[in-house]
Amino acid sequence: MQIVLLSGGSGKRLWPLSNEIRSKQFIKIFSSVNNDYESMLQKVIRQIRQISGDISILVSTSKSQESILKKYVAQDVEISCEPCRRNTFPAIALTAAYLRDVKKISANEPIIICPVDSYVNDDFFKSFETMEELAKNSAVNLVLIGINPTYPSEKYGYIIPKSKDKISEVLEFKEKPTAQVAEKYIEQGGLWNGGVFACKISFILEKAREILKTDSYFEIFKRYSELPNISIDYAVVEKEKNIKVVRYNGDWKDVGTWNTLSEVMQETSIGKVQIDSTCRNSNIINETDMPIIAMGLQNIIVAASPDGILVADKFQSSFLRPFVENLHEQIKFAEKSYGTYTVIDIDENSLTIKVILNAGAKMRYHSHEYRDEIWMIVKGEGQTVIDDKIQSVKAGDIIKIPCGVKHTIKAKTDLKIIEIQLGKNINVEDKILWE
Amino acid sequence: MQIVLLSGGSGKRLWPLSNEIRSKQFIKIFSSVNNDYESMLQKVIRQIRQISGDISILVSTSKSQESILKKYVAQDVEISCEPCRRNTFPAIALTAAYLRDVKKISANEPIIICPVDSYVNDDFFKSFETMEELAKNSAVNLVLIGINPTYPSEKYGYIIPKSKDKISEVLEFKEKPTAQVAEKYIEQGGLWNGGVFACKISFILEKAREILKTDSYFEIFKRYSELPNISIDYAVVEKEKNIKVVRYNGDWKDVGTWNTLSEVMQETSIGKVQIDSTCRNSNIINETDMPIIAMGLQNIIVAASPDGILVADKFQSSFLRPFVENLHEQIKFAEKSYGTYTVIDIDENSLTIKVILNAGAKMRYHSHEYRDEIWMIVKGEGQTVIDDKIQSVKAGDIIKIPCGVKHTIKAKTDLKIIEIQLGKNINVEDKILWE
Repeated sequence: MQIVLLSGGSGKRLWPLSNEIRSKQFIKIFSSVNNDYESMLQKVIRQIRQISGDISILVSTSKSQESILKKYVAQDVEISCEPCRRNTFPAIALTAAYLRDVKKISANEPIIICPVDSYVNDDFFKSFETMEELAKNSAVNLVLIGINPTYPSEKYGYIIPKSKDKISEVLEFKEKPTAQVAEKYIEQGGLWNGGVFACKISFILEKAREILKTDSYFEIFKRYSELPNISIDYAVVEKEKNIKVVRYNGDWKDVGTWNTLSEVMQETSIGKVQIDSTCRNSNIINETDMPIIAMGLQNIIVAASPDGILVADKFQSSFLRPFVENLHEQIKFAEKSYGTYTVIDIDENSLTIKVILNAGAKMRYHSHEYRDEIWMIVKGEGQTVIDDKIQSVKAGDIIKIPCGVKHTIKAKTDLKIIEIQLGKNINVEDKILWE
Repeated sequence: MQIVLLSGGSGKRLWPLSNEIRSKQFIKIFSSVNNDYESMLQKVIRQIRQISGDISILVSTSKSQESILKKYVAQDVEISCEPCRRNTFPAIALTAAYLRDVKKISANEPIIICPVDSYVNDDFFKSFETMEELAKNSAVNLVLIGINPTYPSEKYGYIIPKSKDKISEVLEFKEKPTAQVAEKYIEQGGLWNGGVFACKISFILEKAREILKTDSYFEIFKRYSELPNISIDYAVVEKEKNIKVVRYNGDWKDVGTWNTLSEVMQETSIGKVQIDSTCRNSNIINETDMPIIAMGLQNIIVAASPDGILVADKFQSSFLRPFVENLHEQIKFAEKSYGTYTVIDIDENSLTIKVILNAGAKMRYHSHEYRDEIWMIVKGEGQTVIDDKIQSVKAGDIIKIPCGVKHTIKAKTDLKIIEIQLGKNINVEDKILWE
């Protein structure tokens, strides 16, 4: 079975734990084995791996999330990167073309396309087998999954099926309704649209030729920034006549806001937190190394990261987005393939960053055009390459990197560096890669 | 008029804004002129300066608060330092001896001793004139101020006067009562004990000879750590028969907890904070440079500093102390006479600190026995003295200071330094002063 996971999106509604480069699927808040936490992405991949048979997973993501993604997924998960952010139709077209043109998979094969932002039980993924069968054998173009609604939600789109059978043709799609209208939909057997669908690769490629005027991976990749910014729902799903829906009867939660996310958290608190005995229905998530003390809270979510602190009534937290859009703050924390970086001081002509490299990891060989850098190794051992010269370094060493000079560092042990950037135009975009 | 301000105490109950070295009187949360904030200490000194006549102020504090104190008080305020922390009787005895032995003031002069932890209107200090008159002229040994209670508080000690006159002899002192008992005291004309009193310097010195077996400043200072750890109330006030109380009829608030402090805050928020329109009776104080977003809070106090984050129901915040005692965290933020320092990373054999020196300020010339230091100037210009050699430094410069080497820096402009301490035994105590 070929599964494509759509892992994109920026995470304003789960600020300060999600941001431009770390969207919600990377937040580690679900208890997993070994007293550790797993992220939504890791949870979904683990659940998919439990489906029987041969499973191939391809994660489609944007360039800005490639580094963090590599940290979160195992070697046996393939990654396809969009060169920039577009909507879901270009992303899915790129991925379908990638599977045929790069991975040399027959366009006659079915794929299942699945977002990674829903919290579901393991049996959700069992429906994938039915969906694949339908997409492979019948004369159906598109197979959706429809979630049996538990209440007349105003937050989701509805699929109205022709029958209340486990598998049914689709009569029509409905936009997010009022609760009253939603009740009527539910009476008719209406289902929430979970955003998962199965089809043959060739079906997507056909739509790509129609809408994008090409189905070649390299063409789509090259012209990506000019492609229409449209969703797969709008471009394809809602227009398709030959379409079926598989009914799913089980837990399904969109965990896109703190309010909904906290409902599925198993622990009251994560990180350095003390909670008094008078707190009720409150969750504290602390990603900083500052201690948090919480007392007497009722229905409150507290989330802290180097990017900021949210203290909100759970219901009100759903209205977070405009406050985050108001911030215009530099992103202070990022997970990278090699470890993490945390901005610890910002000044007019300097930026001080704490960089942690995991043992064995390395940065890419790069240089900067407009800034000097100084690295102070405060912990561990490693090897730098500065202007093609290799040197061993250890705690206490200082490495000066004037602008224009190529540099990298490889961690022999876990390595902690204080990096000071100095210059008049400090900008993350100022990075020239040499490998 | 000679006024002695008692500025001591550690601030567990106002964590994370107060700590071992910054007690509550240094927290800047009261609106003052020029859109700035002033601390309790600054407010009290400003109010005292409004009393007519010649006013001399001496602040009695502990060694650990000397540096921050120098930053908060003007040149015309004298400072007397206890060599270590003791209770109020040794502190007052030391101060009285200092005034006679060092400042050469006649022991026949009256002094007014006043703690700095109450929030009062300007007219509170007008009572000082009456108190001084009484202490100077009459045959009274001790003059107290008694606050007319506004409710039967269980939190304060009570003074029971002989009459309900403006000035009265004292009948007796009562410990913190139950509300019911407090009501009875109030019926009798009972007053809250504000901890302010006036007497002649000679009266304190006489008690010092009695209790400490000396009234010499140098003796008291030398033996300070061995002196009995007793309060002035216990050692002197409650045993004194020849004592009067001056009735004060006005605002007086002990602002020792977040609950009471937030009552006298003029602003809902201080620092980088966004509050939504559904918050009620909540205060957010942010001393970090991370933004805070507060939504839907009711009766909540949020306080954040590099030392930690408190999110508490206002009433519950009164029970903060044991949670703070549980922390065992290194203090991360300190105000110094020269500026501030903030710990930004702690590791096994390293400590990274951001040091800000105000223009014109300098560190004391010092060295360390067990650690190397590296200074990275990230902003401004200054002058270092390293091993007696003077050198001009500016943003981008790196200064290595191996252990044992004497060093200091003077800020020409505002100066920001990233200091990295490296060694096996990093400890604030490891500091040898050379001036």
